[in-house]
Amino acid sequence: MHELRHVTSINDLTVDEIETIFSVAGDYLRNLRDPNLPHRIGRSVTDASGAILATLFYEPSTRTRLSFETAMIRLGGKSISSADPATSSAAKGESLADTVRVASNYADMLVIRHPRDGAAKLASCYASVPVVNAGDGAHEHPTQTLCDLFTLRQEGKNLKHMNVAISGDLKGSRTIHSFVYALARFGANIMLMPAKGMEMPEHVHWRLRNELNCFAVPRARYEKDNASVDALYMTADRPHQLSLISDAEIKPRKNIDAMYVTRFQKERWAGKPQEYPTIDQRFLKDKKFSRTSLLHPLPRVGELDIALDTDRRAAYFRQAAYGVPIRMALISMLLGFAREKRLQKFAGGFMPEKYEVYVGSEPGVLACVNENCIVHDAMEGKYAPQRFQLVAPHRLRCFYCESDIAEFVVANRKTRHFSIDAEMPRNERDVVFFASPETAMAAGYSAAKRRRKAANA
Amino acid sequence: MHELRHVTSINDLTVDEIETIFSVAGDYLRNLRDPNLPHRIGRSVTDASGAILATLFYEPSTRTRLSFETAMIRLGGKSISSADPATSSAAKGESLADTVRVASNYADMLVIRHPRDGAAKLASCYASVPVVNAGDGAHEHPTQTLCDLFTLRQEGKNLKHMNVAISGDLKGSRTIHSFVYALARFGANIMLMPAKGMEMPEHVHWRLRNELNCFAVPRARYEKDNASVDALYMTADRPHQLSLISDAEIKPRKNIDAMYVTRFQKERWAGKPQEYPTIDQRFLKDKKFSRTSLLHPLPRVGELDIALDTDRRAAYFRQAAYGVPIRMALISMLLGFAREKRLQKFAGGFMPEKYEVYVGSEPGVLACVNENCIVHDAMEGKYAPQRFQLVAPHRLRCFYCESDIAEFVVANRKTRHFSIDAEMPRNERDVVFFASPETAMAAGYSAAKRRRKAANA
Amino acid sequence: MHELRHVTSINDLTVDEIETIFSVAGDYLRNLRDPNLPHRIGRSVTDASGAILATLFYEPSTRTRLSFETAMIRLGGKSISSADPATSSAAKGESLADTVRVASNYADMLVIRHPRDGAAKLASCYASVPVVNAGDGAHEHPTQTLCDLFTLRQEGKNLKHMNVAISGDLKGSRTIHSFVYALARFGANIMLMPAKGMEMPEHVHWRLRNELNCFAVPRARYEKDNASVDALYMTADRPHQLSLISDAEIKPRKNIDAMYVTRFQKERWAGKPQEYPTIDQRFLKDKKFSRTSLLHPLPRVGELDIALDTDRRAAYFRQAAYGVPIRMALISMLLGFAREKRLQKFAGGFMPEKYEVYVGSEPGVLACVNENCIVHDAMEGKYAPQRFQLVAPHRLRCFYCESDIAEFVVANRKTRHFSIDAEMPRNERDVVFFASPETAMAAGYSAAKRRRKAANA
Repeated sequence: MHELRHVTSINDLTVDEIETIFSVAGDYLRNLRDPNLPHRIGRSVTDASGAILATLFYEPSTRTRLSFETAMIRLGGKSISSADPATSSAAKGESLADTVRVASNYADMLVIRHPRDGAAKLASCYASVPVVNAGDGAHEHPTQTLCDLFTLRQEGKNLKHMNVAISGDLKGSRTIHSFVYALARFGANIMLMPAKGMEMPEHVHWRLRNELNCFAVPRARYEKDNASVDALYMTADRPHQLSLISDAEIKPRKNIDAMYVTRFQKERWAGKPQEYPTIDQRFLKDKKFSRTSLLHPLPRVGELDIALDTDRRAAYFRQAAYGVPIRMALISMLLGFAREKRLQKFAGGFMPEKYEVYVGSEPGVLACVNENCIVHDAMEGKYAPQRFQLVAPHRLRCFYCESDIAEFVVANRKTRHFSIDAEMPRNERDVVFFASPETAMAAGYSAAKRRRKAANA
Repeated sequence: MHELRHVTSINDLTVDEIETIFSVAGDYLRNLRDPNLPHRIGRSVTDASGAILATLFYEPSTRTRLSFETAMIRLGGKSISSADPATSSAAKGESLADTVRVASNYADMLVIRHPRDGAAKLASCYASVPVVNAGDGAHEHPTQTLCDLFTLRQEGKNLKHMNVAISGDLKGSRTIHSFVYALARFGANIMLMPAKGMEMPEHVHWRLRNELNCFAVPRARYEKDNASVDALYMTADRPHQLSLISDAEIKPRKNIDAMYVTRFQKERWAGKPQEYPTIDQRFLKDKKFSRTSLLHPLPRVGELDIALDTDRRAAYFRQAAYGVPIRMALISMLLGFAREKRLQKFAGGFMPEKYEVYVGSEPGVLACVNENCIVHDAMEGKYAPQRFQLVAPHRLRCFYCESDIAEFVVANRKTRHFSIDAEMPRNERDVVFFASPETAMAAGYSAAKRRRKAANA
Repeated sequence: MHELRHVTSINDLTVDEIETIFSVAGDYLRNLRDPNLPHRIGRSVTDASGAILATLFYEPSTRTRLSFETAMIRLGGKSISSADPATSSAAKGESLADTVRVASNYADMLVIRHPRDGAAKLASCYASVPVVNAGDGAHEHPTQTLCDLFTLRQEGKNLKHMNVAISGDLKGSRTIHSFVYALARFGANIMLMPAKGMEMPEHVHWRLRNELNCFAVPRARYEKDNASVDALYMTADRPHQLSLISDAEIKPRKNIDAMYVTRFQKERWAGKPQEYPTIDQRFLKDKKFSRTSLLHPLPRVGELDIALDTDRRAAYFRQAAYGVPIRMALISMLLGFAREKRLQKFAGGFMPEKYEVYVGSEPGVLACVNENCIVHDAMEGKYAPQRFQLVAPHRLRCFYCESDIAEFVVANRKTRHFSIDAEMPRNERDVVFFASPETAMAAGYSAAKRRRKAANA
C-alpha cells in the first residue's frame, strides 16, 4: 500500500519529482507524435487500463478538463465528469467534502476546480484517492505550471538563471502563483509586471523572499530600463547566500528568455480594469525580446495580440498541447503505473510540513483573512475548521488557502492569558489565536501581565 | 429474444430478483476490493463490453449519474450522457417520448431522471431498450432502495422483522416511497417520523395496508415512547394474518435497527419548512439507538449532523459506495450478461398487472389528481393518455405516477349513463371515468336512474 | 500523410464520396443489427481504437451529439465533450479559433455546433484535424443530410427524379439548405412549401438555378394542384439542358415520394409565427401521398402530428436511428480507417474552389450582408477577416456563411479608383470591394472616369 498523495500546490512536488514528470511526459510525447502511426492519431498506451478519473469542476473550463480526460484516454483509462455545478448535487446544496467522499468510491483519482481558494486542500482532507488541484480560486493551478515549465524546456530554455517577465493580473491569477514558486525553486529570475492594482499578493512576495531563496533587486538597479517592472527577484544559488551578495554584483541580464502573459481574471474581481497591459509586436520589438518565448495559459481575451500567432516566439499553442503528455505523466505517477517512477516516497514535497499546525474551533478564534478562502463559504466552511501553520514567529499561514496573517495575538487556553508578543504556550493544545487584543478579551482572555513586568524589569 | 424489462418502481422486481441482484453485487464488490490489485484500482470486468448506457437526466445529479457511469465502466461498457436539460433537445421543446425513441437506437439501456412523477413509466412505454428510473419527481427511486437494502445487509441486519425509523420529508422524497414498499415486502417494521406537514402520502399508506401486508399499530401502543412517530407499521408474516393478531400481541421491539434520514426536498415544495428534524448525537443517545445503522441517500443539507461522520453507526458513506456494485449487478442482469441470472422471466414483478387498465382520451374524462404527474405536463402529456388501474372497487390508480383516486364516478360510453356506486360496465371498452357527477353531466352523461329505482325499491 | 479534409458543407463531398459513405454505413448497419449478437447490443468494431473525437457544442443538442459519441464508441474510439458554453472556456471569453487550435492537440477530429453561420468554416481554418459541421446557425447541417438521403435509400426510393416536398421554416432551417443542395445534385425534384415569411433564402435559389443544374418550373404548371407550393425545381439530367426543354415537356409527377417536415427554428427568429403548417393524416390523405416517406430531422414541436407515429409512411424514427451508422462511416472515412475508402483524394468536393478568393481587411471594406455570419461576432470576427469568392461577374459569396452579395462596387487599391461595373483589376492583390460608391468614396476612392469616357465614346 503506497502513501496517498495529493497535488494541491506546486510545492507538493519536489524538484526531483517535477524532473521525473518531465522525463515521463517526454516519453509520452514521443509516442503521441510517432510518425509511423496512421493519420496522426496518437498511440494510446494501456498504463491506466481499468482506472477511472473523476473531474469535479465547479467553475468553467474546457482546456483543463478536456486535457485531463484526453490524458486519461491516451493512458487507456476512463473519466467520469461533473462539469456543471448547476446540474450536479451542488445545486441541491451538497458540500464539497461529502461529494469528495462519495466520488472517492467511484474513481481512482479526483481532479477538482473550484472558485474558492483552498478548496482542493479541503477536498484532499476528505478524499481517499489522490486529489489534483485544477485551479482553486486565486490560489494555485499546479498542473498548469508543470505545462509551463515543460514548455520552456521544450523551447530550449535553461530554467536556471532564466529571466522570466510576467505580465497582467498577478493578484487574481492562480497560474501565476504556482508559476513563480516553481521558477524560484528552479533558480529562474522573475520580473513582475502587474497591471495597475493587480500586484502580486504580499504573502507571495514574502514566500519568495523568506522561503524560496529569492532576493529582491533594489529598484534603482533596473528602474531605468524596465519602467513597467514592479519587482525583480533573483534566485540565489544557495540558501542564505543573499547577505553575501553585494549590490554591485547584481546584474540582471537584459535578455528576457520568457514572457508570461495572463488575462484579467474577471471572475475574481468586482469591476473592470481601467487599463490592462497588452502584449503585441510593438511591445516586443526591443532587442531584449528577440529570443523570448511567449507563454499564455489561455484563454486570452485581448491582452495578447492575435497578430503574434504566426510569430516564431509564440509558444502558447505548443504550451496548450503539452497539457496532455504532462497530465498523462502526473496521472501515471500518482496512480503508480510507472512503478519505478511512482510518487510514493514523498515526504511532504518541497515544503515539508515543518511548521506546527494549530486548529481553532472555539468562538471568536482567528479566521483566515482571505475573504475568498474556502473556510468562509457558508456550506463548505462547516467542514473546514480554522487551521493555521506558524511559519515565522509573527506569521500564521492558513492551512487551506496559504494566505498569511501577520497581525494576531497568541493566547493560552489554560491560563486564559494572551500575549501580543506572539509568545507560544509550551503545550500545543493550549494555543489559541485571536485577531486582536480586543477579540481575545471579548472571548474572556486577559493580557499576560506578569511577562510584561518581567520584560520591564 | 428475451422480454424487454424496465425498472421504474421497486415493485417491478420480485423479492427473489432483488436477492439475486444482491448476490451478484456481492461478487462485484469483492472484485472491486481485491487487495491484490495495484493501487486500489478496481478490477474492471468485461461483461458489458460493447454495450452503451445512456443517462438522460432532466434534474440535477452527481451521485446517481456518476455511479451508473462508473458501474458501466467497471463492467467494461460505455456511457453517453445528457446531463443538462438546458443544453439538450429539451431546450428546443422535444418531448421525453421522442427523445427516448431516438436514444433507444443509440444505447442498450436508458437511465432516466425527471422532475415529473411517472416520467420513467412514460419513457418505458416508448423505449425499445430497458428503462431504469433514476428518480421521477416524488414518485420512486428504485435503484437507491437497492443500495439501501444492500447496505443494511452488509451492516449485518436481518431485513425481516428489522425495525426501521424514517425521518424527514416523507412526502417529497421519492427514495422513501420505494424504500417503504421494499421494507414491507422484506418483512421489516416501519416507524414513520415525518417533518411536520411532510407526512407520507395517503396512497402510500393505503398500499402498505392493502397491498403490502402491513398493519398499522394503534397509536396508543407506541405514543408514549415515540412521540415523534406518526405511524408504525408491522409487517405480517402471512397475508391476511392481520385479523388474527390481537392488540395484546403487538409489541414493537424497542431497538431501532436502522434510522433513515432524508433532506427537505426543496425542489418539490414552494416554500421552506418552519422546522425540520435534525438527527445528531443527542438524538441518538437513547439506548434503543445503540446499534442503529444510520442511512441517508445524500446529499444532506443540515438534517444529519456532520459530527456523526466518525460515529461507528454512520453507514451513509458506505451506502453511497455500494451504489457502484449494485448498479453493476442491475445493469448486468437487465442486459442479460450473467446469463443464468438474467431478468428475463419476469411476469410483472411483485405487483403483477392484475388490475384492469382503462385508457381515457375523451374530453372531460377523469385526470390524475397528482398535479406533478407527467400527464399534466403541457408537452409530455400529449404522449401520455390518461390511464388508470382499478385497484379496488372504489379506487383508481394512475398508471404513470401511481397516485390513487377514491372519488370518481363510472360511466358507460354506450348507455351514456354514469353510476356513483362505481358499478363497472360489463364491456371494458364502454368504461369511462369522471371526477364527479357534474363533470359527467357536462360531458353529456346522465345518472343511471333505473338502478337507483332498484335501490329504492 | 493524407490531405486534411473538413466537412463544413454537404458540398464538400462529391456524389461518389457520398455513395461510398452510404456503402460503408450499410456495412456498419448490418453489423449493428446482427441477430446473432446477444441482447440487441450492437457489435462494436475496433476501427477507431485509440482515436478521440471532440464534440464542441455551442448550442443545445441531444441527438446529434449523442449520435456522434455513439458512433465513436461503436467504432471502438472515445469522445471528449464540451456541451455547454456556460461551463466552458467560452464563458471566460475564449474565441472559437483558439479553442479549435487547442482541441486539435487533444482530439483526432472535431465536431462543432454553433449559433453563427459560417462558424464551422472558421473553425476549419484554424484546426489541424478534420472539422465536421454539426450545424452552424442557419447555414448547413451536412451530416443530417447524409442521414436523410440514406433514409430515403433505405426506404426504397430512387434519389434520381424522386419528388420531394419540403415544408416549414425553409429560411431558418440549416438542415433544409444542405438537403436541397444534395437533392439537386442527386437529380431529385424539389417542391418548396415554406411557412409564410420563411421562404428559402434568395442565395439558395440562385445556387439551385445557377450552380446545381436545376430549373424552376413556371408557377402556372403546378399552381392549381399545389397551392401551398412556393417554388418547384426540376433537376436537369445534364448541365445546360435547361434551355433545350420546352414548357410543354415539363410534367412534374404528381406522386410525392418524400415529404420533409421541419420545425419552426425559434432560435433563429425574434418572435413567433402567426401560422405554421402542420402535417397530419388529413393533409396526407390525398392519393399523391399514398407512398410518401415522411421525414423530419427532429426534434418536432407540433408541426408533425404524433398520430402519424404509427403510420407506415412515418420514417422519421428510422431516420434518427441511421444517424449512428452514417456517422460511423463518415468518421471512419475522414480518419482513413477504411483505407481503401478514405476521403483523401478530395480535390475540393462537389464545388471545387474554382472561384477566386478575395480577402479584405482595410477599413470600410465590404462586409458580409448576413447579420448572423460569424464575421459579425464581436469576438470571433477578429479571427475571421472578410473573405469573398467571386461566383459570377456581379456576385460575391461570403467564404464563411456562403451568403451572396449582388450589390457592390469593385475598386483598385493601386489606382484608387472604383468601378460600378464590377470590372476586376488585373492583379488580384489590387482588388478591394465596397458596399456602395459612397463607402468607396468615404475610404478615399474615386470613380474610374476614364473608362466611363471610353464607354461614352
